[in-house]
Amino acid sequence: MSEMAAQLRIAHEELRTRGLRLDLTRGKPSAEQLDLSTPLLELPGAGDHHAADGSDTRNYGGLRGLPELREIFGPLLGVPPEQLIAVGNSSLELMHDYLVHAVLFGVPGVDRPWRDGGVAFLCPVPGYDRHFAICEKLGIEMIPVPLTGDGPDMAEVERLVAEDARIKGIWCVPKYSNPTADVYSPQTVRRLAGMRAAAPDFRIFWDNAYAVHHLTDQPREIDNLLDACEAAGNADRPLVFGSTSKITFAGAGVGFLGASKSNLDWFVGHLGKRTIGPDKITQLRHVRLLRSPEGVLGHMARHRELLKPKFDLVERTFSEQLGGTGVASWTSPRGGYFVSLELMPGCASRVVDLAAEAGIALTPAGAPFPYGKDPDDTVIRIAPSYPPLPELAEAMNGLTLYVKLAAAERLLR
Amino acid sequence: MSEMAAQLRIAHEELRTRGLRLDLTRGKPSAEQLDLSTPLLELPGAGDHHAADGSDTRNYGGLRGLPELREIFGPLLGVPPEQLIAVGNSSLELMHDYLVHAVLFGVPGVDRPWRDGGVAFLCPVPGYDRHFAICEKLGIEMIPVPLTGDGPDMAEVERLVAEDARIKGIWCVPKYSNPTADVYSPQTVRRLAGMRAAAPDFRIFWDNAYAVHHLTDQPREIDNLLDACEAAGNADRPLVFGSTSKITFAGAGVGFLGASKSNLDWFVGHLGKRTIGPDKITQLRHVRLLRSPEGVLGHMARHRELLKPKFDLVERTFSEQLGGTGVASWTSPRGGYFVSLELMPGCASRVVDLAAEAGIALTPAGAPFPYGKDPDDTVIRIAPSYPPLPELAEAMNGLTLYVKLAAAERLLR
Repeated sequence: MSEMAAQLRIAHEELRTRGLRLDLTRGKPSAEQLDLSTPLLELPGAGDHHAADGSDTRNYGGLRGLPELREIFGPLLGVPPEQLIAVGNSSLELMHDYLVHAVLFGVPGVDRPWRDGGVAFLCPVPGYDRHFAICEKLGIEMIPVPLTGDGPDMAEVERLVAEDARIKGIWCVPKYSNPTADVYSPQTVRRLAGMRAAAPDFRIFWDNAYAVHHLTDQPREIDNLLDACEAAGNADRPLVFGSTSKITFAGAGVGFLGASKSNLDWFVGHLGKRTIGPDKITQLRHVRLLRSPEGVLGHMARHRELLKPKFDLVERTFSEQLGGTGVASWTSPRGGYFVSLELMPGCASRVVDLAAEAGIALTPAGAPFPYGKDPDDTVIRIAPSYPPLPELAEAMNGLTLYVKLAAAERLLR
Repeated sequence: MSEMAAQLRIAHEELRTRGLRLDLTRGKPSAEQLDLSTPLLELPGAGDHHAADGSDTRNYGGLRGLPELREIFGPLLGVPPEQLIAVGNSSLELMHDYLVHAVLFGVPGVDRPWRDGGVAFLCPVPGYDRHFAICEKLGIEMIPVPLTGDGPDMAEVERLVAEDARIKGIWCVPKYSNPTADVYSPQTVRRLAGMRAAAPDFRIFWDNAYAVHHLTDQPREIDNLLDACEAAGNADRPLVFGSTSKITFAGAGVGFLGASKSNLDWFVGHLGKRTIGPDKITQLRHVRLLRSPEGVLGHMARHRELLKPKFDLVERTFSEQLGGTGVASWTSPRGGYFVSLELMPGCASRVVDLAAEAGIALTPAGAPFPYGKDPDDTVIRIAPSYPPLPELAEAMNGLTLYVKLAAAERLLR
């Protein structure tokens, strides 16, 4: 074993001298993926600036966004277009602002501001660091609950939400979750929608970021949360978020929020103090490029062609290098942007540090956990979308080397 | 007098039967003005997506906005580009968010949240209703101070700010203010920058919305507030806002915030929890269209050609119809988007109501005042930019008719 460790250290020294600069940190689309949306750079085109209702998209107004864009994305997000708004250039800002308004003013049905008295959120883990950062900023306590592959451990969720009125919400990435690629089962959706909540103003933050981001030709679908909540008498419970960020251009697209009429009217009321309206021309650009729900799905199929080989490479490298070693397990996502790698306890931060020494940037260990703290130091999030295949191969070889080296160090301790 | 009133009422009945639909409510650019920016509809163009630093504007990142865009607008707003951020599609949202963060967390130098203890703002009146709406939403008490033509009554401002630590800020539209077209004098700027404030975290919200929106060939300039505050030892006091909303497309442009390094770092820190970055492609579009500060000024000269005849018509109609009557006075703006009409006490809302009966929409009386309440009911804000000249002429004739009718009714009471 110590001989093996010595060999791995030699390999590490060799890798270090190569001066690599590789990056597996963020779920960024590659240049080739962005090229799929090149027409956006010259759309809508001179003379084309009227919305379907005849209004001039170059002028003020239209707080809820272009109806024709909401008609394209409504079906994809499982939201009737009249219950969907298209606003801003990301969904993260809509989640942030909903929470800010809730902290300051309270939400429809319960006007008591969330800042009065402690507020806590359930955080299925591992999860999305930017969700957790919003809670941390706003002083919202984060309570981790484990993911199961079908969504969070619902027995635990039901127990906590029923007994603790401070728990006002839960973060969910229901399809191909970041980073574990969980797809919430029909039973999970039904239980989330129907469970008894001690807080009358309990909300589900349903970040459907990867609604159409399939990696196989058998797309996974999730049950409709709005419908399930409505059927259970909890119509104000769900907040459905989505965006075009990993469909067209990251950051130069459109965010969406779908919710009950009262939630939406409340949100738009606050929004109307902040802005006169969204960038309707960028919305029109997206209508012209994507045209229909089917147009979006066709566009995503081309993303898949570019992404699939990268995810296959990750899977292959892990299998070849780590399969049977017992020192790591990993997810085999059917969609989304991430692979979650689980190591022996205490190894994740060591692997990230070793990789950094060799010029391979990984998401900081702990990032997918509230407060950046992975209690067992086991999880690393891999984002294979951005680097070209040869660079990804190099980074993956380095990564698996360090997984083995960290494990060897640990076992020799 | 009563015969005159009777004649005016007959004219009113005639006007009513014509079924007009005219709108002088909002400072919206006209279709012809928007046409000036038609190239934006096909910019930057396929293949043109790299920023000056070589980064790909189609992907995530760049929280402070494109440096080359900040270099164009920095000189126009009197802000060094490194102290300017380019974010979002309006400046209103930046004002709103600065205030929200201040209410929740306090501002640099004084971490005590503004929500702890009463907070008040000085509101030069008449002013911009959307500023006041943000204060009202956040529970910030509004204290009106009169405008003088050179900015607010500074003796009053100095007295209030020195004695009341609850006063954390003042709203200023320093050039061609909305709606009175005040241009803040050098002395006003110097006194605002240097005055003693009881609140150590006092802020000037400097909404330079009409920085380049001249209506004459002798542009008015204002002194540099950032420099004046820095010289007075109050570097963190000013927050300079601007946007392209009335330069290119309203709502499909870019907002700007300029401030001290500590203010800006604080704001960007909060911004980074809300978004991964702004729409850099829209920023690139603006760089390609406008090119330089001089390019912006050239572009604005073309706006002026379209706007000047409308403002001339307003001035001419008021002079011809109301000159010498003693029942009204009005501003003769040298820039900006508005004319402020001052009537006899108690007449403003009556004129707005009469005009509405004839299908002429005016900004609600009271709108330019905190809580929508004009204490004397005297001020009406006229926005002549949007309607074509013939419609504007018709609306102005109606308006002056109602000014006379309301005055006659009042004098006959």
